[in-house]
Amino acid sequence: MTKFAELTLHGFLDALASDAPTPGGGTAAAAAGAMGAALAQMVAGITLSKEKYAASHDAVRPIAEAGELARAEFLDLAQEDSAAYDDVVAARRLPKETEEQKAARARKIALANRRAAEVPMRTARAAVRLLAALPELAEKGNPNAVSDVGAASLLLDACVEGALLNVGINLSSIDDAGFVAEMQRETATLQEASQRLRSQVLALVRKQF
Amino acid sequence: MTKFAELTLHGFLDALASDAPTPGGGTAAAAAGAMGAALAQMVAGITLSKEKYAASHDAVRPIAEAGELARAEFLDLAQEDSAAYDDVVAARRLPKETEEQKAARARKIALANRRAAEVPMRTARAAVRLLAALPELAEKGNPNAVSDVGAASLLLDACVEGALLNVGINLSSIDDAGFVAEMQRETATLQEASQRLRSQVLALVRKQF
Repeated sequence: MTKFAELTLHGFLDALASDAPTPGGGTAAAAAGAMGAALAQMVAGITLSKEKYAASHDAVRPIAEAGELARAEFLDLAQEDSAAYDDVVAARRLPKETEEQKAARARKIALANRRAAEVPMRTARAAVRLLAALPELAEKGNPNAVSDVGAASLLLDACVEGALLNVGINLSSIDDAGFVAEMQRETATLQEASQRLRSQVLALVRKQF
Repeated sequence: MTKFAELTLHGFLDALASDAPTPGGGTAAAAAGAMGAALAQMVAGITLSKEKYAASHDAVRPIAEAGELARAEFLDLAQEDSAAYDDVVAARRLPKETEEQKAARARKIALANRRAAEVPMRTARAAVRLLAALPELAEKGNPNAVSDVGAASLLLDACVEGALLNVGINLSSIDDAGFVAEMQRETATLQEASQRLRSQVLALVRKQF
C-alpha cells in the first residue's frame, strides 16, 4: 500500500477525496493527530532553544520528546487504519458458497472488524496521552507560540473524536458483547478526558491574549 | 516560499515541528480544513456513483463541488497564513533608528498584523460555510461512510477554532478599536455556528451506528 507520509500533501488529499474505500476518516484523524504532535514539538523546541525560558526547560524537554514520538506513532496508525479497513473489505469478498466457506468468511470478518476497532482506539489513546501534556506546555512554553499550543489541542481532540467515531462504527458489526462493552467504556473515558483537556488548554491560551 | 501542498506529508510535518516561525497553527488549521473538505467530497462522490442513492443526487452534487473548491481554498489559505506571518516578522525587523524609520516601521507592522488577522478569519469563514452543508450530507449521503461525515465535521470545527485563535492573537497587537470589535463580533458568530453544526452532524452520525 502507498505510504501516506511519502505522498505530497496534495496527493494525500486526493487519496482522501477519491472514491476508494481507504484512506478515510480514521486515517485523516491520525494525520490531524500528527499535526498536533508536530505543533507541540515546535512550541517545546522554541522554548528549549531560549535561555530566557531556562526555568521551564526541565518541564518542557519531555514534551518535545513525546511530541516527536507521537508524530511517528500517528503516521504509523494512519497507515494501519487504512490497512485494517482494507482487510475488512477483503474478508467480506471471500467466497460464501459452502458452509465451510461461510464459517471461514465469518471468522475472518469478525477478526478484521475487531482490528478495525482496535487501531483507531490506539490512535485515540495516543492523542489523549499527548493532550495530557499540553496544559503544562501552555503554562510553561514560549508565550509567543501559545496559540500554537491551542491549535495542537484542537487537532488532538479532533483526532480523538474522529478515531472514536471509527471505533464506534466498527463495534456495530461485532458480536462479542464483552469486547464491545469494554471498548464503549474506554470510549467514554477518552472522550471525557479529551474534552476536559482541550477546554483546560484553551482557557490557558485565551488568558494570555 | 515552499508550496506546502507539494511537500510530502512527512516534510510538511517536519516544517510544522521545526523552530522556524512558519508554518504554525494557522497553516495547520487550514490543512485540517482541507482534510475535512476532502472527506466531504469523498462521501458525496460515493453517493453520486451509486444509483441506489439517486434520490439524494440533486442534494449531494453541490456538496461534492463545494468540497472540491473548499479544499483548494484551504490550501491557498494555508500558504497565505504563513506568508502573512512572515510579513509580520519582516516588518518587526525593519530599522527603527530615525523618527521617520520608526513611523514607517509602525505603519508596516500595523498593516501586516491586520492581514495576519484577516487571513485566518477567511479560513474560519470557509470552514463554517462547508460545515453548513454537512448535516444534509450526514442525512442523505451514502450511509456506509457516515462516520467520515462526522470526521469531516470534527476537522472543520478544529479548523474554525484553530484559525480563530490566530485571529485572536493577532488582534491583541492591533490598535484600530473598530476593526478589533468587528473581528471579535465575527469570531463569536463563527464559533457559535461551528459548535452548533458540529453537534448537529455528530448527533446525526451517531444515530446511524
